[in-house]
Amino acid sequence: MDFQISNRMRGMKPSVIREILKQMSDPELISFAGGNPAADSFPAKEIAQFSAEMLEQDPVGVLQYSVTEGVPAAREAVRKFANRHYSVVKANDDLILVSGSQQILDFVTKCLCNEGDVVAVENPAFLGAFLSFRCYGTKLVGVSMEEDGVNLEELEKVFAAEPKPRFFYCIPNFQNPTGRTMSEAKRKAVYALSVKYGVPVLEDDPYGELRIAGQAIAPIKSLDETGNVIYAASFSKIMCPGMRLAYCVCDKTLMKSLVIAKQGSDVHTNVWSQRICAELLTRMDMEAHIQEIRGIYREKAQWMMQLLDEKCPEIRYIRPEGGMFLWGTLPENVQMQDFVKRCLDKKLAVVPGNAFLVDENQPCQNFRMNFSTPTKQQIKMGVEIMAAVLREMQLQ
Amino acid sequence: MDFQISNRMRGMKPSVIREILKQMSDPELISFAGGNPAADSFPAKEIAQFSAEMLEQDPVGVLQYSVTEGVPAAREAVRKFANRHYSVVKANDDLILVSGSQQILDFVTKCLCNEGDVVAVENPAFLGAFLSFRCYGTKLVGVSMEEDGVNLEELEKVFAAEPKPRFFYCIPNFQNPTGRTMSEAKRKAVYALSVKYGVPVLEDDPYGELRIAGQAIAPIKSLDETGNVIYAASFSKIMCPGMRLAYCVCDKTLMKSLVIAKQGSDVHTNVWSQRICAELLTRMDMEAHIQEIRGIYREKAQWMMQLLDEKCPEIRYIRPEGGMFLWGTLPENVQMQDFVKRCLDKKLAVVPGNAFLVDENQPCQNFRMNFSTPTKQQIKMGVEIMAAVLREMQLQ
Repeated sequence: MDFQISNRMRGMKPSVIREILKQMSDPELISFAGGNPAADSFPAKEIAQFSAEMLEQDPVGVLQYSVTEGVPAAREAVRKFANRHYSVVKANDDLILVSGSQQILDFVTKCLCNEGDVVAVENPAFLGAFLSFRCYGTKLVGVSMEEDGVNLEELEKVFAAEPKPRFFYCIPNFQNPTGRTMSEAKRKAVYALSVKYGVPVLEDDPYGELRIAGQAIAPIKSLDETGNVIYAASFSKIMCPGMRLAYCVCDKTLMKSLVIAKQGSDVHTNVWSQRICAELLTRMDMEAHIQEIRGIYREKAQWMMQLLDEKCPEIRYIRPEGGMFLWGTLPENVQMQDFVKRCLDKKLAVVPGNAFLVDENQPCQNFRMNFSTPTKQQIKMGVEIMAAVLREMQLQ
Repeated sequence: MDFQISNRMRGMKPSVIREILKQMSDPELISFAGGNPAADSFPAKEIAQFSAEMLEQDPVGVLQYSVTEGVPAAREAVRKFANRHYSVVKANDDLILVSGSQQILDFVTKCLCNEGDVVAVENPAFLGAFLSFRCYGTKLVGVSMEEDGVNLEELEKVFAAEPKPRFFYCIPNFQNPTGRTMSEAKRKAVYALSVKYGVPVLEDDPYGELRIAGQAIAPIKSLDETGNVIYAASFSKIMCPGMRLAYCVCDKTLMKSLVIAKQGSDVHTNVWSQRICAELLTRMDMEAHIQEIRGIYREKAQWMMQLLDEKCPEIRYIRPEGGMFLWGTLPENVQMQDFVKRCLDKKLAVVPGNAFLVDENQPCQNFRMNFSTPTKQQIKMGVEIMAAVLREMQLQ
């Protein structure tokens, strides 16, 4: 039969990156395209041990249905973890465990946006977020980025305009794709604008623990005295992504709606993951583990940057203070899509930068490189492929 | 701040049953209210063994990101399992692994319904499904039930009416809450009406493997030559619910939209669950395991029915051929809500039947009893509480 797809989903296209990754069965392909955490950062030994203990000592507790908000012991462990450096979970807030942080983007949009509503977003930004927002028929309005985060004048204009955005989406730490970090001053200003105009901030912080340089900056949520900030963070990058575990902290009244959205979707999060998370947070030295991951990422990032400087001096990029990505800018005489295609022909995948723009058809000289997934050897080979492609293109 | 909740979510209330279950910390309370599978039916030993092996032999495969459609080996194992008795996955169909079968209801509604659209449902039916559908601002139109399934004349009227329903939701096997099974003749008729009027059927089959009496009947999906039927089935009742694993089979064109909906929500299903499922399907004797579960459920159901016959002859109920529920009908002189409240005062939880109606305010003499979760001792104590309540109410 001919299915009539809903207005909100008609015309939606699958995520460019996930489609690239699906086609990556070619073992010779080097991928700078994904956003996978480094596999050697997974606490695999501890997970195996805790999993065996749980399934031995309390199989029914792991295998039976649980509550929508999350396994109580896991929620409590996550609350402590979230609040260990800053006051993230406030007195009027609640915390829910969800099946990956993208699910938070889904549910927040479901609960706050009618079709046709505006969502303000950093531009460029995480394309998966755009997908979640657009699946509810929202209209995205991009706010351009500066070195230290979003352009505040533009943001205020967007907040002041009618229709007013239903929320503002940002990744203050090591933003995807640019790797930029929002300064403390800008975080304060964004919060002040949120309060002034009554526009909630959806602060997505999947990479916050992955700092490799500079000083930590408090999350916007920690400034929040009014319940304006919805905070999303993930265990994908500091434990592992296969278990699909993240958490959301927000005002209790909004949380009631998010809980109902979850009841109507996957009912509750996988219990094994929640229990593993609780065990890791309470029995493993998480600070040492995070330092170890930072070490791995620092080394890979520095290696990639050093090779780019040596072999591809034409490519400018932002030196990130953390995260998993470098945001490259090609010289004007190199056409970006052509560059990406030629790299792929030589078996290197990178993501064309326009995929991260609200309007994909805007001119774009950027592309995104991931340094967390490839090995150091693959990083070297990949940068050499880029150098070869640049030579090839500039000789023509 | 005051959050403005979207039209679709405003006024949505949490699931009655999940709220009851949350308050069930009282260890003395006997619950006939939940829908938990019997914990002794979980293949806990096998899960522990396979989990340990997987995490030892291929930790990265279990812990890293995976693809939205599902881990290939797990999808293939599930496809074989789905097709072992009937042709469920047709040539033009695709299969996706999801985080519990409620997620299918979520995504199907997201992809097929605009706000204000009509969804036709068996009435009474699974209240979690109503929640999923209503979270998209749909309007539910109930079709009444007969002993052998939905009333076909009413169904045809609803299919023929404008606005035409975007799909028809039914549970042909051991329906929740009534325990009724749709006859073969009605399945054929429902499929024929679906084709005639171009209304897709969402066939939810979470209990299909839990037959305790009578002969198996082919799912509606197995009759499907036109792609009209969307089939949803779960591993919650034959493996365990804590792992949140289910699958959906439908026409490839619709599947493309469902995959995008999942990319925009939880990206992919927990990998550990998928891998455990694949191991159980390929290495355990699933037929023997299912027979064992049937034995447990048969014994409990018969025990509850025998006790009801003895101690509460005033309560009529439908003798189910499977599933997890008995649907009780109280005599006219017993007010149902009062009965439920008095049971709760004596520490027995049952679910008031109106919770399963499209219009909860309709008069209702029914209530739902679950026989899979309580022990035989608890079943006895619970039925005795009902008997005491009935005496108390009829003496007044």
